[in-house]
Amino acid sequence: MRIAPNLALDERVNVLRSSGVDVLHLGFGEAGLPVHPGLVDALGAGSASNAYGPVAGAQAPRAAVAGYWTRRGTPTDAEQVVLAPGSKPLLAAVVACEPGDVVLPRPSWVTYASQVELFGRRTVWVDRPLGSGGIPDPALLPAALARARAEGATPRLVVATLPDNPTGLLARPDEVEALCRVAEAEDLVVISDEIYRDVVFGSVPFVSPADLVPDRTITVTGLSKSLALGGWRVGAVRFPDTAWGRALRGRVVGFASQVWSNLAAPMQAVAEYAFDEPADLVRHREASTRLHGLVVDAVHRIFARHGVVDVPPDGAFYVYPDFEPHRERLARHGIRDGSDLARWLLETHGLAVLEGEAFGDDPHALRFRAATSLLYGDTARRRSQALESADPLGVPHVARSLDRLDAVVAAATSA
Amino acid sequence: MRIAPNLALDERVNVLRSSGVDVLHLGFGEAGLPVHPGLVDALGAGSASNAYGPVAGAQAPRAAVAGYWTRRGTPTDAEQVVLAPGSKPLLAAVVACEPGDVVLPRPSWVTYASQVELFGRRTVWVDRPLGSGGIPDPALLPAALARARAEGATPRLVVATLPDNPTGLLARPDEVEALCRVAEAEDLVVISDEIYRDVVFGSVPFVSPADLVPDRTITVTGLSKSLALGGWRVGAVRFPDTAWGRALRGRVVGFASQVWSNLAAPMQAVAEYAFDEPADLVRHREASTRLHGLVVDAVHRIFARHGVVDVPPDGAFYVYPDFEPHRERLARHGIRDGSDLARWLLETHGLAVLEGEAFGDDPHALRFRAATSLLYGDTARRRSQALESADPLGVPHVARSLDRLDAVVAAATSA
Repeated sequence: MRIAPNLALDERVNVLRSSGVDVLHLGFGEAGLPVHPGLVDALGAGSASNAYGPVAGAQAPRAAVAGYWTRRGTPTDAEQVVLAPGSKPLLAAVVACEPGDVVLPRPSWVTYASQVELFGRRTVWVDRPLGSGGIPDPALLPAALARARAEGATPRLVVATLPDNPTGLLARPDEVEALCRVAEAEDLVVISDEIYRDVVFGSVPFVSPADLVPDRTITVTGLSKSLALGGWRVGAVRFPDTAWGRALRGRVVGFASQVWSNLAAPMQAVAEYAFDEPADLVRHREASTRLHGLVVDAVHRIFARHGVVDVPPDGAFYVYPDFEPHRERLARHGIRDGSDLARWLLETHGLAVLEGEAFGDDPHALRFRAATSLLYGDTARRRSQALESADPLGVPHVARSLDRLDAVVAAATSA
Repeated sequence: MRIAPNLALDERVNVLRSSGVDVLHLGFGEAGLPVHPGLVDALGAGSASNAYGPVAGAQAPRAAVAGYWTRRGTPTDAEQVVLAPGSKPLLAAVVACEPGDVVLPRPSWVTYASQVELFGRRTVWVDRPLGSGGIPDPALLPAALARARAEGATPRLVVATLPDNPTGLLARPDEVEALCRVAEAEDLVVISDEIYRDVVFGSVPFVSPADLVPDRTITVTGLSKSLALGGWRVGAVRFPDTAWGRALRGRVVGFASQVWSNLAAPMQAVAEYAFDEPADLVRHREASTRLHGLVVDAVHRIFARHGVVDVPPDGAFYVYPDFEPHRERLARHGIRDGSDLARWLLETHGLAVLEGEAFGDDPHALRFRAATSLLYGDTARRRSQALESADPLGVPHVARSLDRLDAVVAAATSA
């Protein structure tokens, strides 16, 4: 198994930077904001806990997670929740523990397909129209399932990312509804990856499959994105309160007990504090989301001005442009596919982005994901400055980075 | 996948206790001691770090781990090390990433065989004589390998636990040497699980396979046992500095990148502090090990007095008695195997222990593991009292628990 391409690119950029190369790093989906002091306090308060405790997590943090989902209109009991060191291990555990193959939207987050491969399952790729949210096109789904079954696959899980990585788009309610209807008709389980749910700034209303087909939806979340805690590794999953849901949860807990035991006890204290959503933390999260929205919008406008992207993102901190209109021009530089384009941008312009191929997209397509959140600055002080500013786009180091990006995109589209 | 039986028993005991049942809990391998303040400080100091960072862990904590092994006579570079949330995920990753089947000593720690099953490999069980350390009997190994190969297995990894769980015994240098000679002759990789390495109080000298066959040994450690940090989940692995070792490390990092990303950044700060082994922490560890030794010895003497165990443990915090001499007597209570015995001890005497079957032992055998470390007390104050006492066995709550254990063993062997 190769290292995940997003993590590999992040490591590569850090090596380049430490050797003095000035890289504009739009290659990694890290929230890039400081830790809220309440989270530091919660970690400290949890540091007396050193017992293993229950595999699923202690009652109190699970109850906090249940409250989080209940407040969002999905009634949840602590018994339906499992905590883990990140949402990533939970996604792996669900794939490992629910027999069958996995339907993924193309493009989608780099790790889904790798986990499917890891556990010897098949990925059934289903395209999604450019400009649509992170679900397989419901109109294409039935035929894709029939084709997959004819080839011996047994599709059972379908992944939705709401809002989406790599595009930042949020599937519209009617699209989510259509996906759920297909899931019902075809007896699929929906994995709803909602790790960016609290990083939404667009106008599309958020609808979770858990609200439409609660008995067949597994919801996953974590603190990495909305609270910038990627490096702290805190994730949670919600299972349906049905016989099947309880049994699958039991198998996932069994998997966890054999692979990672439990979320570190001090991190469970963090989870309890964060998922309780105290007012001060919510204000910090809202300020973070506002900043993400403003900078995503600025980056989107840069790409849109050069004609390589259309629909603006609704959430997360990504823009996913398509340089197809400039294929002929780019070919003169030897750029024939997405990897060529990403390499050229890094080597010639010092701009790090992750090619669409990493997300399962057509390797030939001239698409990449630009992660905007690392534009807030490369020191804690600069990030705080961006977060606290009334006009983050006017903060000098942010403005300089945006100008530099504009120049690179201009060069790439007129080279 | 069912929940690991040790974790399941721990959860069951906690439920029983919270419903008012007075359980003497010898069922779980938790070190049961307080967190050293230096570790709390290190966690706090690490709380500003919220970036993902490298999958293998940052340079500084990996260098600390390398120093730890180098000081023990195994020269190690930071590039050979990977950190993770526990040694458990690292063991899983090694099994997942090195093709072939796995040779395990019978009995051995509950999770090895489950991980082998999880990744669709076969376990080749090899008995070990009662009273010997945690390696498959080297004299039986060649024939067992030949038999396994004849049945289509492809044995590639062999696990050694030094010192051992569930018996607390440390394989003697000549036994480790013999194992390594077979590994060389049969082209096996040795996984040396050394998580109890710093919890040794017997007279058997510690020899690591990494010192005898460094090019084919993968060493695993963690902070759960020697520093009582089970609930903090900090583990590390060392790969050989060979082409094969570097390639396997690369695959393990790839696996990690798709399953758990990295050890939480604040926990990496803890790892850096702890593996640097500052004097104050080493004194605390030595005091902990002294306590483990004294209490294991007391528990061993209780069982030995009743004729159900012979060789005293060399390390860890386990005793593994065999009630075979009392089979006829126990049969009168309907006790015919190890599970019957463990159930009867819990239900009739409130003594929680884990039957040998959980460790792959013959289900028929009347053996179980008694974990002695939870005898230190069930509150932080009592545990500190036991740790700080010049005469821990004379501390009233410890003495009472030992008396109770003595009475239960007396009842079980004269019932």
